[in-house]
Amino acid sequence: MSDTGGVAAGQLKAFVERIERLEEEKKAIADDIKDVYGEAKGNGFDTKILKQVISLRKKDPAEREEQETILELYMAALGMIGSPTE
Amino acid sequence: MSDTGGVAAGQLKAFVERIERLEEEKKAIADDIKDVYGEAKGNGFDTKILKQVISLRKKDPAEREEQETILELYMAALGMIGSPTE
Amino acid sequence: MSDTGGVAAGQLKAFVERIERLEEEKKAIADDIKDVYGEAKGNGFDTKILKQVISLRKKDPAEREEQETILELYMAALGMIGSPTE
Amino acid sequence: MSDTGGVAAGQLKAFVERIERLEEEKKAIADDIKDVYGEAKGNGFDTKILKQVISLRKKDPAEREEQETILELYMAALGMIGSPTE
Repeated sequence: MSDTGGVAAGQLKAFVERIERLEEEKKAIADDIKDVYGEAKGNGFDTKILKQVISLRKKDPAEREEQETILELYMAALGMIGSPTE
Repeated sequence: MSDTGGVAAGQLKAFVERIERLEEEKKAIADDIKDVYGEAKGNGFDTKILKQVISLRKKDPAEREEQETILELYMAALGMIGSPTE
Repeated sequence: MSDTGGVAAGQLKAFVERIERLEEEKKAIADDIKDVYGEAKGNGFDTKILKQVISLRKKDPAEREEQETILELYMAALGMIGSPTE
Repeated sequence: MSDTGGVAAGQLKAFVERIERLEEEKKAIADDIKDVYGEAKGNGFDTKILKQVISLRKKDPAEREEQETILELYMAALGMIGSPTE
């Protein structure tokens, strides 16, 4: 393994190649995700709301409901919706 | 100040309005920045590189040079440029 | 105005200084926004939900309600909530 | 396949599950990339500069060199470095 100014060239190359390969794989999966959203859209689904649903599914249901309750309280306090308790 | 489900509505409104006003100001400045870049582009400057320069100017010159040196060592080790010490 | 390799140095400096001054102003406002959120938190408000409210206020109320309806349909279809029509 | 308010529940579930599975795979790869950077750091490499190198490798070498030349012209014009032509 040759050194360039104290840099272990072979080791550096190996790290760079591993990262680049992984980044390619990651990009391929990101493209697949985009394709599935596109397919869902083609079937009449709203992709923006689909994203929101997928994000909400990651939360604990009890926590999600609590946050929804606080959101509704705030919105009611600001006159954005009718009071949720009425 | 009326309460809505335990939420101090007046206080909440005040916070929301302060944040919205500040966000508007921030957006106006962001638009100004975009305009200056546009003007620079109209005068023949490369805006991408202008951004890079402005980012580099935030760094301490000694640190910036050290990082540039390491970058060149890595690039030489990977055969992207000739060895900087040659 | 001196030229450096075809670059109008004075003009470049003027652009850079204008952008840097604007970026400082923008950062100061971003810090102010952070402070207001901190103050709201200190008064018992949930800053994450406050952010969500501010984002929702930017939308047209009719559009916001339509999206909420679709969201609930999707969540019901996925068994995340009871059917909204029941 | 049951319908909920006009939503094809089975089809929606299938899309959601496909997306969630792909997102998991993507996250696993992102974690792998983080691990490789951590390993590189443990071997004495500067991960920030490693990231920069990997980003630069994606560019066409001729374009990269041209941009580097413009960057140096700008920096010289701003007195950040000595004139590259001296």
